[in-house]
Amino acid sequence: MNSSLDAEDLFPRGTVIPGDHFKGTAWLGMLITDLVFNCPIGNVTFEPGARNSWHKHPGGQILLVTSGSGFYQERGKPARRLSRGDVVKILPNVEHWHGAGLDSSFSHIAITTNPQRGDAVRMEPLRDEEYRGAIG
Amino acid sequence: MNSSLDAEDLFPRGTVIPGDHFKGTAWLGMLITDLVFNCPIGNVTFEPGARNSWHKHPGGQILLVTSGSGFYQERGKPARRLSRGDVVKILPNVEHWHGAGLDSSFSHIAITTNPQRGDAVRMEPLRDEEYRGAIG
Repeated sequence: MNSSLDAEDLFPRGTVIPGDHFKGTAWLGMLITDLVFNCPIGNVTFEPGARNSWHKHPGGQILLVTSGSGFYQERGKPARRLSRGDVVKILPNVEHWHGAGLDSSFSHIAITTNPQRGDAVRMEPLRDEEYRGAIG
Repeated sequence: MNSSLDAEDLFPRGTVIPGDHFKGTAWLGMLITDLVFNCPIGNVTFEPGARNSWHKHPGGQILLVTSGSGFYQERGKPARRLSRGDVVKILPNVEHWHGAGLDSSFSHIAITTNPQRGDAVRMEPLRDEEYRGAIG
């Protein structure tokens, strides 16, 4: 549960994310929290099968994929498969989820843009059948 | 000179940076330019010996080091040696330079924070003796 840095981790893995917004085990290592930057940045690592619930960001979010493979899906669209080097642009208030597939862990940098517009809005969990259908 | 993606590159290398703000060869691949995010993000790659001139950012900048090794120095302070996984917080209007050492290339993500405060302010080049003294 403590901060750790595996050989394969590019940025510190941080600690397990508590609560019920994630299904499965995911880790968050905050890299930037200083208010002066107006740009919170975290390193998120999903174990295989882990993902978050449907949610949206009032100011948007950017994901920079650093290792493993995973998925990003916007409501009503096919899931996009992601691997290292991929960039995901999540526009403000677009409902989405992201997470690992079943056979790989998945790590991305998450940048909260326009943070003054407010925190992420959490919605319902991604159902198991939605997840399985999305990842194919 | 065209966009390329070497096996060792995490994000696209982009194109060689023109002009005289850099000494040696450095590459810039812009990852985010969309105005909606208020968060320009670029991938910068320095060949060995390459570095930029003294400069400062009115709104600050964040560097996330992805490969190789290099240096970051603020005016009047010792240079800090950087390698993968390092995070550099550059406060607004702090004069600094960054770049590779002589024996390794160096890549970092560069995030411009508070971009509404204006573009980077370029100052004088880092003299060769300053560079050699800084990297030790």
